[in-house]
Amino acid sequence: MSSSVVKNQYAIVGVGGLGGYYGGRLHHAGHAVHFLLHSDYEQVRRQGLRVESVHGDFSIISPHAYSRAQDMPRCDVVLVGLKSTQNGVLPQVLPYLVKPGGAVLMMQNGLGIEEQVAKVVPSGVEIFGGLAFLCSHKVGPGHIRHMDYGHIRFGAYRGEGLPAGVPPLLRAVAEDFRRAGLPVDVEGDLLGARWKKLVWNVPYNGLSVVMRSTTERLMAHPQMRALCQSLMREVVAGAAAFGRAIDEAFVQKMLTDTDTMVAYKPSMLLDYERGQPMEIEAIYGNPVRAAAARGCAMPRVQMLYEQLKFLDATSSPDVR
Amino acid sequence: MSSSVVKNQYAIVGVGGLGGYYGGRLHHAGHAVHFLLHSDYEQVRRQGLRVESVHGDFSIISPHAYSRAQDMPRCDVVLVGLKSTQNGVLPQVLPYLVKPGGAVLMMQNGLGIEEQVAKVVPSGVEIFGGLAFLCSHKVGPGHIRHMDYGHIRFGAYRGEGLPAGVPPLLRAVAEDFRRAGLPVDVEGDLLGARWKKLVWNVPYNGLSVVMRSTTERLMAHPQMRALCQSLMREVVAGAAAFGRAIDEAFVQKMLTDTDTMVAYKPSMLLDYERGQPMEIEAIYGNPVRAAAARGCAMPRVQMLYEQLKFLDATSSPDVR
Repeated sequence: MSSSVVKNQYAIVGVGGLGGYYGGRLHHAGHAVHFLLHSDYEQVRRQGLRVESVHGDFSIISPHAYSRAQDMPRCDVVLVGLKSTQNGVLPQVLPYLVKPGGAVLMMQNGLGIEEQVAKVVPSGVEIFGGLAFLCSHKVGPGHIRHMDYGHIRFGAYRGEGLPAGVPPLLRAVAEDFRRAGLPVDVEGDLLGARWKKLVWNVPYNGLSVVMRSTTERLMAHPQMRALCQSLMREVVAGAAAFGRAIDEAFVQKMLTDTDTMVAYKPSMLLDYERGQPMEIEAIYGNPVRAAAARGCAMPRVQMLYEQLKFLDATSSPDVR
Repeated sequence: MSSSVVKNQYAIVGVGGLGGYYGGRLHHAGHAVHFLLHSDYEQVRRQGLRVESVHGDFSIISPHAYSRAQDMPRCDVVLVGLKSTQNGVLPQVLPYLVKPGGAVLMMQNGLGIEEQVAKVVPSGVEIFGGLAFLCSHKVGPGHIRHMDYGHIRFGAYRGEGLPAGVPPLLRAVAEDFRRAGLPVDVEGDLLGARWKKLVWNVPYNGLSVVMRSTTERLMAHPQMRALCQSLMREVVAGAAAFGRAIDEAFVQKMLTDTDTMVAYKPSMLLDYERGQPMEIEAIYGNPVRAAAARGCAMPRVQMLYEQLKFLDATSSPDVR
């Protein structure tokens, strides 16, 4: 476990709304944080990292910025804040970044995330997942705007879909985040938490794109609200196929919570509107295939997956 | 049965691409055809009806045009060429138009069509359905452009979903159409024919609207093609719940037939693009409810229904 004297070092892969915000806060709290940058490297090197946050703005004048993983020190924790669509770069960077006995922390939504890391890192490196309830965007190179929320749920990965409990390093990471002012829960069952988050993500991300609509307009229409509920129940059935029970009260809470939200554009709709890749496989393809492999069909979720794949392949929002 | 001397008289309700074309052809073949018009009445009265057809153009200089059903003679056959979304007007017009012993011929797609007529016409009036494979549009008042196809499948309606056989008057109507140069098949089982036509209509009409796509683009994308097939199979299951067997070979034929079509905009996409009502209940709502009442769920068809209802309620194609 990390001591209170020697602080954990962090590497941040993916310095966007998520990685820039959490990495910035950890730096601000006194951790050595090393940022791996790609297109923004030169500007961050020259101008630093600037975080505008509802919890207070701050800047990092001279962040530890790198353009190549090979140039970075090995860290205790590698926080991956990339979109899951960019995970193809992980085999080229993770082996350089993580200390023996360290951890890779995948802060991405969806299923099948940690599995991609398990193929890449040596045994002995732990793999954690983080589910962030965060509204934060990169508004320019090295310029992050954190608008709302920020709560994180952490869990440790273990193969075969088994609950992994809470290893000491994960507990230490959670403590680092808390001291940086970031509210964190630690889950003993990461896979269960991932399925539970899909209950919201599956209906609203995909339908907002296919229907070109905010959550508010979706929920205001009776048939569309019914479809959101049907999709949620299919996710619950998928979770059950993995032995994870999610009760109907949670489904109803997701619906009523969404009723009270302001007109909200889920991240997938923002990606679609910006012509950026959507996280279709993590949020739809992987859950549909995983459930099917256990004999559980999710016909509506699969249909949404097929519709999103079509939109992803054939259209940009401006060329319809 | 009608003799070869006294020809059946026809009333046409809905003088658009379908009613204008078939009514025009029947008039051209020597039948007395009475057209009930609404917004186009004055122009048709003055300028007649003009049909441009791939099978030869023709005009009717002085059609029997009426603006009120009450002014029309009772006819042997009332051909309804309205969109099913306009069937709300039928109770106000059908009772004036059909002779005792005559028939109402509903030339509309979908399910639950004849049931709406059965509530309105006196017993003794027969109810027929017609499924037209027709590409024809109204391009202006009294101006019809017939682009392709024209084949019709007729059947008689009997309650409770039972096959009705082929009554003499239906045989006579089919003969009238054939003499007018219109290819016709007569089915002993209208409900079976309606379900069979849904195998094509359900995937392509709705998906073309939700995905804003021609059939060609839908079929070129592997996941979307798979979804078309899944939707077709749900329709086959719905038909089976009514004791109508549709074999897998028919599904495969619909797919390969569509593969070979040119880039095609189904009628629902044309309606949507023009901001006109879509036939959502006839093609989706009624089949979903009818199948559900017999214990057959069609989750993907229902999802498409819910998506279309949302689009119908909340957006026009130009305001997205």
